[in-house]
Amino acid sequence: MIVKGHPAHPGTGEIVAEAILEAITAGGIDPGVFALIQGNTHDLGAALVTHPTVRAVGFTGSLGAGRALFDLCAARPEPIPFFGELGSINPVFLLPNALAARGAEIARGWAASLTMGAGQFCTNPGVVVAIDGPDADGFVARATEALTATGPQTTLTAGIGAAYARGRARIAGIAGVTTHVLGDNATRQAAPGFFEVDAATWFARPELADEVFGPAGLLVRVADADEMLRLARGLAGQLTCTLQMDAEDAGLAAALLPVLERKAGRILANGFPTGVEVADAMVHGGPYPASTNFGATSVGTLAIRRFLRPVCYQNLPVDLLPPDAR
Amino acid sequence: MIVKGHPAHPGTGEIVAEAILEAITAGGIDPGVFALIQGNTHDLGAALVTHPTVRAVGFTGSLGAGRALFDLCAARPEPIPFFGELGSINPVFLLPNALAARGAEIARGWAASLTMGAGQFCTNPGVVVAIDGPDADGFVARATEALTATGPQTTLTAGIGAAYARGRARIAGIAGVTTHVLGDNATRQAAPGFFEVDAATWFARPELADEVFGPAGLLVRVADADEMLRLARGLAGQLTCTLQMDAEDAGLAAALLPVLERKAGRILANGFPTGVEVADAMVHGGPYPASTNFGATSVGTLAIRRFLRPVCYQNLPVDLLPPDAR
Repeated sequence: MIVKGHPAHPGTGEIVAEAILEAITAGGIDPGVFALIQGNTHDLGAALVTHPTVRAVGFTGSLGAGRALFDLCAARPEPIPFFGELGSINPVFLLPNALAARGAEIARGWAASLTMGAGQFCTNPGVVVAIDGPDADGFVARATEALTATGPQTTLTAGIGAAYARGRARIAGIAGVTTHVLGDNATRQAAPGFFEVDAATWFARPELADEVFGPAGLLVRVADADEMLRLARGLAGQLTCTLQMDAEDAGLAAALLPVLERKAGRILANGFPTGVEVADAMVHGGPYPASTNFGATSVGTLAIRRFLRPVCYQNLPVDLLPPDAR
Repeated sequence: MIVKGHPAHPGTGEIVAEAILEAITAGGIDPGVFALIQGNTHDLGAALVTHPTVRAVGFTGSLGAGRALFDLCAARPEPIPFFGELGSINPVFLLPNALAARGAEIARGWAASLTMGAGQFCTNPGVVVAIDGPDADGFVARATEALTATGPQTTLTAGIGAAYARGRARIAGIAGVTTHVLGDNATRQAAPGFFEVDAATWFARPELADEVFGPAGLLVRVADADEMLRLARGLAGQLTCTLQMDAEDAGLAAALLPVLERKAGRILANGFPTGVEVADAMVHGGPYPASTNFGATSVGTLAIRRFLRPVCYQNLPVDLLPPDAR
């Protein structure tokens, strides 16, 4: 296994690699099983994924960079699997009874999830969908309060900070977008952005569904449950979809569920998608572009399967079988 | 699910589709879950694999056709998995003690496997590897007898028959190839071919390792166990690798096994690879070009996983969970 360290934290990468090397040494394993390569050029990534001895690639990053590496993997003389995680807007559906009963609490929770870690999470809940009415107005007011109170945070790199500022400005500049919060962004900082569109604008401007990496949230105000379902049906692949629902919302939730199951790798109720537990049931993947392999997950115990290949032993003498199969 | 019927047997395809439709009707399932499309153009295949609602493709066929479809799947705006099975020469290793003890029997078994169904099996054992010596001579004599006695058989299509004749002539025409058997091929017929090369020729002419679809067999005569291991290390991905071995061959088998496990989806001892049982342990796949997805199998109960996508339900009310997860 070769890890290309993230160029934003070469020292951390080095410390982690040393810990891995210690475990390898302690376990009496050949140190050749692991290598850390540091660097920050496209050529390095391309050289790694096209090298004949590399047989599979795992990647987390932007749709553009990921697709370029995916294409290189697919074009090899011997194509290899590319397990890429390329972005997600992680929509949160505010079902009407939950919104009426707990709108303020949900707004605070959403703002906290949106701004956690300067919004630098692949599961950042960038889009919220609510049915028009006074409860939606209340949600906007509470979310605006919470996000206004949240100051700018330092991003991992100046590049992430700059890309966030550009992405936020792109959303704010689209006709039909209302801006509720737009904090000042100093260099390498990300301050929350909070925007709103109606469903007509959402459907007319597909670029509103592009991920903005950072604490930018967009509320889509739909007319009714049917329009919420229509929005769900139009979604691209997602890592997560979330329902905020009370018992009285079960009918609408049941209508949304068969749609969302086809859109996302993880469906949450009454939580927020940031925070990915490493557990047997965890799925961190989903239809493209959430991931490039719909059957895979990059978090959870199932993740190791991405790199396994089944072998059938037919009639082999027991002594020749792998110890576990004897 | 859409099946493109093989143009060589449209009537059989129709009968099978009718049986599936009957099962769908009896089960009260929406008939839209299954469709049969008949046709024989490249455009039809291309249209199917690039259609936006198609989300995964299974394919069995030639390396050329399969790679073209794989490339179309990978180049889509939303890339989809292509589970292709693109050819294999299924090498059989004749270990010295087995060859000495049972050479004649193995030769007859190999000839029967090679010519079964006019050699039209993806698991057809096209290459046999033996260590030089009188036992190898004996194998050649017995295999020649058995293959000479086997007449030409009708291939599925005239195209397959013609491609077989070309492939066989290609092998026969390579300098250093000895021809032992070369039966007459009438139109749409395939008569056995049996050829031999030494290891130097095998390593110098990589095209000897290209699949010839039909009853053409090639013996590679190696100098010793080390050269047999070297040949194994140089193999491309295979559906199967077979060891003909007796108890005294266990040392060489143990040396070959870690190499072959990295080359093939199925390792057999003292059998022949034609005949793929549908069983829990079956793997019909392997590294490229045996298959385009090393983690998948197209036969066996694991095959359905190719088309499944895991979904994590986090905190959903029990009533909303799929019945099996309640």
